[in-house]
Amino acid sequence: MSHVLSKNSYGKSHVRLSKVIRHGDRHDLMELSANIELEGEFAESYTKGDNSRIVATDTMKNTVYALAANHKLDSIESFAQSLVEHFLQKYSHVAAVTVSIQQDRWLRIDHNHPHAFVSGGDEKRICKISRRRTGTATQRTGGIDGLVVVKTANSAFTGFLRDQFTTLPETSDRIFGTSVRAEWIYTPGPHDFNSIYDRSRSRIIDVFAKHKSMAVQETEYEMGKAVLDACPEIEEISITLPNQHRIPINMQPFGLENKNEIFVPQDEPFGLIKATVRRG
Amino acid sequence: MSHVLSKNSYGKSHVRLSKVIRHGDRHDLMELSANIELEGEFAESYTKGDNSRIVATDTMKNTVYALAANHKLDSIESFAQSLVEHFLQKYSHVAAVTVSIQQDRWLRIDHNHPHAFVSGGDEKRICKISRRRTGTATQRTGGIDGLVVVKTANSAFTGFLRDQFTTLPETSDRIFGTSVRAEWIYTPGPHDFNSIYDRSRSRIIDVFAKHKSMAVQETEYEMGKAVLDACPEIEEISITLPNQHRIPINMQPFGLENKNEIFVPQDEPFGLIKATVRRG
Amino acid sequence: MSHVLSKNSYGKSHVRLSKVIRHGDRHDLMELSANIELEGEFAESYTKGDNSRIVATDTMKNTVYALAANHKLDSIESFAQSLVEHFLQKYSHVAAVTVSIQQDRWLRIDHNHPHAFVSGGDEKRICKISRRRTGTATQRTGGIDGLVVVKTANSAFTGFLRDQFTTLPETSDRIFGTSVRAEWIYTPGPHDFNSIYDRSRSRIIDVFAKHKSMAVQETEYEMGKAVLDACPEIEEISITLPNQHRIPINMQPFGLENKNEIFVPQDEPFGLIKATVRRG
Amino acid sequence: MSHVLSKNSYGKSHVRLSKVIRHGDRHDLMELSANIELEGEFAESYTKGDNSRIVATDTMKNTVYALAANHKLDSIESFAQSLVEHFLQKYSHVAAVTVSIQQDRWLRIDHNHPHAFVSGGDEKRICKISRRRTGTATQRTGGIDGLVVVKTANSAFTGFLRDQFTTLPETSDRIFGTSVRAEWIYTPGPHDFNSIYDRSRSRIIDVFAKHKSMAVQETEYEMGKAVLDACPEIEEISITLPNQHRIPINMQPFGLENKNEIFVPQDEPFGLIKATVRRG
Repeated sequence: MSHVLSKNSYGKSHVRLSKVIRHGDRHDLMELSANIELEGEFAESYTKGDNSRIVATDTMKNTVYALAANHKLDSIESFAQSLVEHFLQKYSHVAAVTVSIQQDRWLRIDHNHPHAFVSGGDEKRICKISRRRTGTATQRTGGIDGLVVVKTANSAFTGFLRDQFTTLPETSDRIFGTSVRAEWIYTPGPHDFNSIYDRSRSRIIDVFAKHKSMAVQETEYEMGKAVLDACPEIEEISITLPNQHRIPINMQPFGLENKNEIFVPQDEPFGLIKATVRRG
Repeated sequence: MSHVLSKNSYGKSHVRLSKVIRHGDRHDLMELSANIELEGEFAESYTKGDNSRIVATDTMKNTVYALAANHKLDSIESFAQSLVEHFLQKYSHVAAVTVSIQQDRWLRIDHNHPHAFVSGGDEKRICKISRRRTGTATQRTGGIDGLVVVKTANSAFTGFLRDQFTTLPETSDRIFGTSVRAEWIYTPGPHDFNSIYDRSRSRIIDVFAKHKSMAVQETEYEMGKAVLDACPEIEEISITLPNQHRIPINMQPFGLENKNEIFVPQDEPFGLIKATVRRG
Repeated sequence: MSHVLSKNSYGKSHVRLSKVIRHGDRHDLMELSANIELEGEFAESYTKGDNSRIVATDTMKNTVYALAANHKLDSIESFAQSLVEHFLQKYSHVAAVTVSIQQDRWLRIDHNHPHAFVSGGDEKRICKISRRRTGTATQRTGGIDGLVVVKTANSAFTGFLRDQFTTLPETSDRIFGTSVRAEWIYTPGPHDFNSIYDRSRSRIIDVFAKHKSMAVQETEYEMGKAVLDACPEIEEISITLPNQHRIPINMQPFGLENKNEIFVPQDEPFGLIKATVRRG
Repeated sequence: MSHVLSKNSYGKSHVRLSKVIRHGDRHDLMELSANIELEGEFAESYTKGDNSRIVATDTMKNTVYALAANHKLDSIESFAQSLVEHFLQKYSHVAAVTVSIQQDRWLRIDHNHPHAFVSGGDEKRICKISRRRTGTATQRTGGIDGLVVVKTANSAFTGFLRDQFTTLPETSDRIFGTSVRAEWIYTPGPHDFNSIYDRSRSRIIDVFAKHKSMAVQETEYEMGKAVLDACPEIEEISITLPNQHRIPINMQPFGLENKNEIFVPQDEPFGLIKATVRRG
C-alpha cells in the first residue's frame, strides 16, 4: 500500500508581544498574539526527516520580535501584512503564508491617562492576512471576537415551529445576551483599518441596543447590513452569535410569582446563529 | 483505631442568578454567582448516612432563587445578609452560615442606555457574609477581583538583594501589569455598600495610575492606605497583586537594539505580592 | 445599496448527555457533548423576523435527549447519524444537517469494575456526520482530540535552515511532548467504528513511542501512515501536533551544568505542525 | 489617620519544571509547578520602597531551577523541604517559608515503556511544606487534587429535610460523580512519601467504587477513615467532594419514559461537601 502526503503546513502559534510606542509625554500600548503558518516545499521533512528547508518555528517567533522593532504597529493588519511579505520574499520555497493576529483591548484610565490602562476585558480585535505566491490576490480579513452584550428589553421569540419535541414557550419579552464574533473581508486597496474597526464595532453595538429583535437571526442580519452601510471598504461580513440564555425560573413550586424578573444564566447548551452578508 | 470527624460543612456553589429590576422606562441588571456553606449538627449524615437533618443543596439553590424574588438586590452584601439570616432562623440545628457572592460587571451601552449593557470584562465585585449563631459578631467583607491594569511608565525595581542565583537586571523603567484582588473588612453598622465599592475601586485605580512605584509592594501599600482614607467604613484591607511580567526581548542576536519598546507578556511564573493594611 | 444574505445556518451547541446502559450486573457509561447545525430555508427569519420555519434550538436539544432514549448509543458515529437522519426526514425545508459529537473518556476502575469509572483525562473521541439532502454523499469523520504524550528520548531536531533571526541551537536529544488531534475520513459502507477508533489510537501511541524522530513533521507522517495501514476503513487522515516545548535551562549563570536534565515546560508560543495523509 | 501594615508576604507562583532522571536504559519523568512564599522583614519595601532586603521573585525562580539540578526529586515533598531549608538558611531576615508544589500525572505508555509517557489527565499530586524559623514545627501536607470519578450504582439520597423550597425528589439510585481533593497532614518523622501517596490514592478509589453511599457525606467520611487506617504516617485528612450532578431528564413531554438511563451532566451549580477526619 502506498501513502501520499496530500497536504501539509506548519508554523508558530501564540507569539505574544507588547509594544510601547513612546510619544514624548504620552504612550501607546499594543499587545497582541500572532499565529504564523507556512505552506511550501516542506514534504521531505515529513517523509524523510530532512529539515534543510524547514524554517524553525523558533525562528518565526524571533522574526515577529525583530520585525516589531522597526514597524510602527499602527494596526494589526499592517503588521500581519509585513510578516507575510517577509516570509514570501525571504524564502523562495515558501508557497503561501497566513498570519492571524488578535489584539488585546486596553482602555486609558479615566479615558485619557498618558501611560496607565485598564483592561477592556476578553474582547479581541482580530485579523488574518493570507497570501499565496502565485495566483489569487491577498486575502485580508478584520474583525472582533468576544464582544459580550446583553439587553433586557425589545427581544421576542415567537411563531417558531412546534413538533413533538418542542417544549419551549413563546415569549414576547426575553433577555438577549450574546458574545459577538464578526469577521469581515476587506475590498482591495489601502485602507484605514483602525477607522473601519471603530465604525464596525460602533454599528454592531448600536444595532444590538436599538433593534427590536424578533429573532437572534434578524438582529444578526441587521448588524451585518449596518456594518456594510458604514464601511464601503468591507465587501462581506460573517457574524456568529451564541445565544447566551437566561432561563426564567419557575417560582410556582415556592408559592411565588416570577414577574419576568429572575433568571438563571446558562453556559450550555447554547444556540449558535451564523450569517454572512454581502453587497447585492 | 478510632476516627473522629473533627470538622464538616457543606453547601451549594456557583448558584447563578440574573435579576432585572424594571423601573418604568429604565432597567437595572444584576448578575451574580452565590456560594452557600452551612455548619451545624450534620455529623450523622457523615458517620451513619442519616440525612434527616440535611438541607439538600438543591434546596439551598431554590432558596437563593426564592429570596431573590422578594429582595431588591440593591447590593450583593445585603442579599448575602438576607440569605445568612434565612438559614439561621429557619434551622435551629444550623450553627453557622457563610454566603459569598460575586457579581458580574455590566456597563450601560453609551454609559446611559436604558436596557442594553456591554460587559465590563472578567472583573468581579465580591462579598462574603459569615455568621455563627453564638459568640462572635457577623463577619462582613467586600471587595474586587480581577481588576486588570497596566502602566508603561513610573515603575522601577532596583536595589534588591543579589545572590548566586540572581540574574535579574535592575531597571528604572519597566512595565507594571497586574490583576488587583482587594478584600476589605467592614466596620459594624449599616453602610452604603455601593458607595464604599465605588470609592475603593476609584482610589485603587487612581493610586495605580499616579504612584511612582519603587516596588509592587510599595504600590500595594499605597493602595491600601488610600482605600482606608477614603472609606471610614472599612477597618482593614488585604490586597493581592500578581506581577504580570512583560520581559524585554534581547534584540542583540538579531543585530537590533530594543529601546525599551518590545516585550513578551508572560503568564507564568509570576510574582505574587500580598499585604494587609489596617488603621493604626 | 442592497445587501444579500449569502450564507446562513444555526443550531445548538454543547448539548451534554450521559447514558447508562444497564446490562444486568454491569453498566456501560457514555458521556458526550453534541453540536447540531442546520442549513435550509431559514432566510426569512434573518430578513423579516419570520420564525415560522425555525426549529427552535431548544427543540434540537430535546431531540438529542429523546433520540438517546431509544438509541443504543453503541458509538458516537451511529448516534450522530441518527440525528442527521431525523432532521432531514422530519423537515423538508432543511437542506443540510451537520452533527458533531465529542465523547468523554471514562476508564473502569481497576480496569474491570462493573459500575465505577475513573476519568481518562481531557482526551476526547470525536466525530462529525454531515449530510446534504441533494448531491454529495454523507461526509463522515472520526477522530481523537487531546491525547497528551511526551517522550524523553529518540527525538532530534537538526539541519534546519538558519537565517539572521535564528538563535535555536541544533539538538540531537530533546524532549518531545504534544497533544495529538487526529481526524480521519471514513470510506463509504457500514463500519465497526469502535474497532477503528481502537486501532487508530493504538497505532498513534505506538508510533509516538517507538519512532526515532528527526522532526515532529516526520513523526506525524509516520502516524498517518500507520493508521491507514491498520484501518482500511479510513481513506484519509489529518493530524495536528502542537509542539509542547520543554526548554533546557541555562545553568551557567548559577555555576552549574545542565546535563540535559532540567527543562521549563512552556505553554506558549508553540509550534503547530499539520499534515494530511491519504492512500496513494 | 495612621495606617499599619499588619501582614505581608510575597513570592513566586507557577514555577514550572521538568526533570528527566536518566537511569541507563530507562528514564523517570517529573513535571511540577511550584509556589514559593516568604514572610520576614520586608516591611520597608512596602512602606518606603526600599528593596534592599527583597529577594527578587526572579531569584526564587532561579533557585528552584538550581536546586533541582542537584536534588534527586524522588518526591515533591522532599524537594519542597529542600527549598524551605534553602531560604531559611540563606537569609536570616526571612521568618517563614511556605513551598507548595503540584505534580503532573504521567503514565508509562503500555505501563512499561522506558521513556514514553501518556498523560494521566488533570489530576495532580500536591504538597505544602511550611516552616517558621522560631516556634512551631514544620507543617507538612500531601494530597491529591482533581481525581475525577463516577459511579452508576450504589448511590442513594433519601430522608433529607423538606421545606417550602424543596423540590428535589428522593432517589434510591442516582449517579454519583465527583472530583476528589484530599489533603493530609503528616506526622513528624521521616516518611516514604511516595508509598503514602500510593496507599491513600488507592484507598480513596477503592472506597468510592465499593461503598454503598447513602450520602456524599458518608462516602467522604469512609474515604477519610480508610486513608487513616492505611497510613499511620497521616494524622489528619481533609477531603472536599463537589457533587458533579447528572440530572435525570424528564421524558414525559416527549411521550417517552426515562428508565433512569438518560441524564444531563451539569457544571453548575454544584454541591460542595467537606470533612476533616483525624485519629480519635
